[in-house]
Amino acid sequence: MATDKPMQLGMIGLGRMGANLVRRLMRDGHHCVVSDVNAAAVAELAGEGATGADSLRDFVAKLDKPRAVWLMLPAAIVDSILDQLEPLLEPGDVLIDGGNSYYRDDITRAKRLADKSLHYVDCGTSGGVWGLERGYCLMIGGEDEVVAHLDPIFKTIAPGEGCAEPTPSRSRTDGTAPLGYLHCGPNGAGHFVKMVHNGVEYGMMAAIAEGLSIIERADAGKSRQEVDAETTPLRDAWAYQYDIDVGEVAEVWRRGSVVGSWLVDLIADAFAGSPSLEGFAGRVSDSGEGRWTVLAAVDEGVPAPVITTSLYERFESRQAGEFTDKILSAMRSEFGGHAEKKG
Amino acid sequence: MATDKPMQLGMIGLGRMGANLVRRLMRDGHHCVVSDVNAAAVAELAGEGATGADSLRDFVAKLDKPRAVWLMLPAAIVDSILDQLEPLLEPGDVLIDGGNSYYRDDITRAKRLADKSLHYVDCGTSGGVWGLERGYCLMIGGEDEVVAHLDPIFKTIAPGEGCAEPTPSRSRTDGTAPLGYLHCGPNGAGHFVKMVHNGVEYGMMAAIAEGLSIIERADAGKSRQEVDAETTPLRDAWAYQYDIDVGEVAEVWRRGSVVGSWLVDLIADAFAGSPSLEGFAGRVSDSGEGRWTVLAAVDEGVPAPVITTSLYERFESRQAGEFTDKILSAMRSEFGGHAEKKG
Amino acid sequence: MATDKPMQLGMIGLGRMGANLVRRLMRDGHHCVVSDVNAAAVAELAGEGATGADSLRDFVAKLDKPRAVWLMLPAAIVDSILDQLEPLLEPGDVLIDGGNSYYRDDITRAKRLADKSLHYVDCGTSGGVWGLERGYCLMIGGEDEVVAHLDPIFKTIAPGEGCAEPTPSRSRTDGTAPLGYLHCGPNGAGHFVKMVHNGVEYGMMAAIAEGLSIIERADAGKSRQEVDAETTPLRDAWAYQYDIDVGEVAEVWRRGSVVGSWLVDLIADAFAGSPSLEGFAGRVSDSGEGRWTVLAAVDEGVPAPVITTSLYERFESRQAGEFTDKILSAMRSEFGGHAEKKG
Amino acid sequence: MATDKPMQLGMIGLGRMGANLVRRLMRDGHHCVVSDVNAAAVAELAGEGATGADSLRDFVAKLDKPRAVWLMLPAAIVDSILDQLEPLLEPGDVLIDGGNSYYRDDITRAKRLADKSLHYVDCGTSGGVWGLERGYCLMIGGEDEVVAHLDPIFKTIAPGEGCAEPTPSRSRTDGTAPLGYLHCGPNGAGHFVKMVHNGVEYGMMAAIAEGLSIIERADAGKSRQEVDAETTPLRDAWAYQYDIDVGEVAEVWRRGSVVGSWLVDLIADAFAGSPSLEGFAGRVSDSGEGRWTVLAAVDEGVPAPVITTSLYERFESRQAGEFTDKILSAMRSEFGGHAEKKG
Repeated sequence: MATDKPMQLGMIGLGRMGANLVRRLMRDGHHCVVSDVNAAAVAELAGEGATGADSLRDFVAKLDKPRAVWLMLPAAIVDSILDQLEPLLEPGDVLIDGGNSYYRDDITRAKRLADKSLHYVDCGTSGGVWGLERGYCLMIGGEDEVVAHLDPIFKTIAPGEGCAEPTPSRSRTDGTAPLGYLHCGPNGAGHFVKMVHNGVEYGMMAAIAEGLSIIERADAGKSRQEVDAETTPLRDAWAYQYDIDVGEVAEVWRRGSVVGSWLVDLIADAFAGSPSLEGFAGRVSDSGEGRWTVLAAVDEGVPAPVITTSLYERFESRQAGEFTDKILSAMRSEFGGHAEKKG
Repeated sequence: MATDKPMQLGMIGLGRMGANLVRRLMRDGHHCVVSDVNAAAVAELAGEGATGADSLRDFVAKLDKPRAVWLMLPAAIVDSILDQLEPLLEPGDVLIDGGNSYYRDDITRAKRLADKSLHYVDCGTSGGVWGLERGYCLMIGGEDEVVAHLDPIFKTIAPGEGCAEPTPSRSRTDGTAPLGYLHCGPNGAGHFVKMVHNGVEYGMMAAIAEGLSIIERADAGKSRQEVDAETTPLRDAWAYQYDIDVGEVAEVWRRGSVVGSWLVDLIADAFAGSPSLEGFAGRVSDSGEGRWTVLAAVDEGVPAPVITTSLYERFESRQAGEFTDKILSAMRSEFGGHAEKKG
Repeated sequence: MATDKPMQLGMIGLGRMGANLVRRLMRDGHHCVVSDVNAAAVAELAGEGATGADSLRDFVAKLDKPRAVWLMLPAAIVDSILDQLEPLLEPGDVLIDGGNSYYRDDITRAKRLADKSLHYVDCGTSGGVWGLERGYCLMIGGEDEVVAHLDPIFKTIAPGEGCAEPTPSRSRTDGTAPLGYLHCGPNGAGHFVKMVHNGVEYGMMAAIAEGLSIIERADAGKSRQEVDAETTPLRDAWAYQYDIDVGEVAEVWRRGSVVGSWLVDLIADAFAGSPSLEGFAGRVSDSGEGRWTVLAAVDEGVPAPVITTSLYERFESRQAGEFTDKILSAMRSEFGGHAEKKG
Repeated sequence: MATDKPMQLGMIGLGRMGANLVRRLMRDGHHCVVSDVNAAAVAELAGEGATGADSLRDFVAKLDKPRAVWLMLPAAIVDSILDQLEPLLEPGDVLIDGGNSYYRDDITRAKRLADKSLHYVDCGTSGGVWGLERGYCLMIGGEDEVVAHLDPIFKTIAPGEGCAEPTPSRSRTDGTAPLGYLHCGPNGAGHFVKMVHNGVEYGMMAAIAEGLSIIERADAGKSRQEVDAETTPLRDAWAYQYDIDVGEVAEVWRRGSVVGSWLVDLIADAFAGSPSLEGFAGRVSDSGEGRWTVLAAVDEGVPAPVITTSLYERFESRQAGEFTDKILSAMRSEFGGHAEKKG
């Protein structure tokens, strides 16, 4: 590769994702000016060819006009950085939020910045730590001309056509979706699609995880069962006598099966490295998009029980349902004098 | 009260439920012969007027023919007691399983016993520890004449008409449902209805418990929020600043509200006795009927997501989803390098 | 009855609920001034003893100061009525929103009205068309003194102690919860609790409805099964041969069972009037509180899968999942060449 | 390719899957004897190089001993074909069920056939209509030596290593999982894993479908909203003003995103061929494995709310929840006099 339209891009936020975006851009011939609160992160990328900046003022000064500034920051601090940048920028400059902002904030910000003739682009970025090599799937919201202007940047960051077979029935020859990036609509549309993407991700992950757990417990009939009024004896213990290697199941599903997916690739890799998943505590975080997807489903009146349930499973994994459980125990105790089991 | 048709009933199993059934029957003028592996339990009821038996043989000998024998036992041991009773009984005798047997076992047992001219009745019994005073709701399966023969027994055990207002639109004057007992159909039908009753119970309990938990966390906006890429900050902390007395909410819902129910009565009582539900571990058992209800829904092709979800919540309360959660953690670690939170 | 502290209350909105609140208040010795866009509704209540008003101006003029004005209006028009009332009212007057407003609107309104020294009370009101006789369960949010001032009104509207047995473990003797009304906290707290109440209601209704459906389909084994690769034959047809009278099941559950509840009373009544529920289309509305309950659960991080699922079932009942289903059909067609079934 | 260990295999059932398995085997140098009730299907494959049989007797006669017979039949008729085959076969012959049998039937059959010294192998086969080119993912249950004996067959049918990148952390060099087939355990284990595979498939499909539906309804704010007590107005209509091309979203997700998967490939293809999915009725079948996966989860006590919910969504797509919805309507009508909406 090597883009035929090299551009300059400023990057603020040199965490895992930001730094790798810079590397991927530079490899393809673009030039990057970089800024971070962590001077070592700036120095490292400067050593790889980027132009380092030691302050936001310095950063802005080093960018050609109209400036293109990409923010790769935790959603919670985007607005404070925008507040600092705003007075330094000039009409026509473009701000790209490549993080996980709530799409409603994009709408608000874009309006506010438009008052100062600044342009705003929201860009949902998927790909995780593997994106440097694989490329990142980009879901973009913003004004047509502004998004078009940035096209060489998006093209470089995205995976490109080769990473998947062409879609057989596809006849349209326009559009960038087959290259791995898509202008989804006006401001907010990019992060809206990314938000739902993550909701789908939660649901797919949960389906895979539940399935593998059912396979792992295919030996349930081997446990001795207590006999009392409170415990359900397993009626068909003979049917649950299997010791199945869950990691090998994940591995075999990677090839030719209907569930073949990057997520199955990843869990096969995790089992290859840690056959019993030792070292994973199972307290699963959720970082906003899953919750917002549920809010959108409810607002739209679209049933989304699978995605929602996968979100609640994460809450449960962090014992957030503890009070609910206590209430259930208390009710059972009231009506049945049910003594609680310890295990 | 005092039945105008006193009968004799044999009771095997003098746990909480069995003993109280005997007491309720004797109060109404019936006579009971009682048996239990625990001699003290037999002695106690003998002291209250029952005829005690010191063996199954003695028990059977003390019953008038055709005998009526009620089993109030853990589902898992019913078949072994039946095996012991069978050779002692004579054609025309009636066995009533008042416990929580799987309705399919009723069908099988009834067929087997019919070969020996023994009759079998399955009777789902709801009411818990309160049934002695309130009466028990009875859901009955069996042959028409046999169930009709036992009518005085069922009438005494059931709550009777007075315990609830008449149903305004009810015009039919036949049927025992308004008295709190119902012959639901042939063998198995009684336990089928009782099984689903418990599935409904799981769902209602879960709805109440979830709702009260949402109220209890109406102060969520008061907690300090961390700012990082993994944690979703609560956007509208101002809207979650309430300290609401959950126990008083349960109490107020008891009167005039749409959710008024015996379960709300019970949880109000639990909160009255223990305002923070201290002493309840929240490891919620499930005793078979909930599971079987889900199996029936799946077999019938009837969607039952609420009842099923309430069952899974109980599994989760016992950390049965732990492996699933570890898989989720492992996947997140693979694609995002997400470090896990400890809390 | 007959209150020992008669008050005057103005009521705006004389629909089903508003009119019956007025009647219940007048029966107990309170005086009501009433207003509605429908002059006939005003005239009818005037005929029963209320003071009719023919405009908001007239309405306000007829109220003693400090005025107490109860709004019983669709949530969507409360703000426009408030806008019209505000200039007519004077410092110290009290506005009570007894409808189904979103609690966040209460917080906003209360602040805005406080700037003009007007007081605002939010009052969630449960009881439906039966409330005139049964009384209404009231969940109240607002300032302590203002709520205390209105106590005689709330006490009359609420069901009072007699309608349920005392809670056995309750030792505290203060508090109005046993009378059927509760001051839950500052503004918004009343509607917050009412919102969750309705979420619980959705969940309980769904549990009951699913259960009765499973019972209704206990005859699933009687249908002939097609044999092809796409249809799952019912393996255990013998176990689904029951014709159970669902309406009688609802009736029997009213007495002594764990699921006894007002909702079961109601469905027993519906079946008594219409044994096959003919005339009900099954397109189930949802009026806001269910959705908001889910949003609160998600914001708080409290798992609420049962309540949420019951909301989605309502969406599904209105075919809101149709596009989702088409996508599933399309995927199945792609990977399996699965022809779709028509039924 | 071209196997270095050519074998002979008999195939009964020349539907889509069976015929393509035969073709894939013959391409790689194996020889096939084929049988089907449809003579034309036999003739077609005979024309491509297979040995056709015109009866089961003829089929058995044409196979070398020990015979290897693969059944590719609807689960519901496997047992009747086995009954016909049994008397024709001889000790040491091997039967492979490559269809979607319930794993419990495998256990039963294997035992029964073992009594006659016949061997049985259950082989879950995933890949759909694409398997001829892509290969099929195979999940196998049976005796070690028998499965080992058939290895050349499995190796040819499976996709082989090349179709996916190696798993980076994988260090073990034994095992066939990286080739796309896996001996999962004793009889039933193959179909058990395939069953759960399909459960996972249901869940993943539902997650994708729900997400795309939420994106499709991102224009929800454009609809006019009615104002009445029964309809929830969309509070934030401004946030739902997007017209997003759902098909292009599916296409872009194919590259570099976390949700990249064969299922996303397929739905992108479906949208490319039919942008509004016209022609799909959305009545989604379920063919057994999903249901059995839920039964296994419940038996094992493993929470599987996502997979289960996806099954129920399919039931709902066929209006199987209609009676439940009517009950909800009836209850609402009882407590609130709620008139039903028609749409």
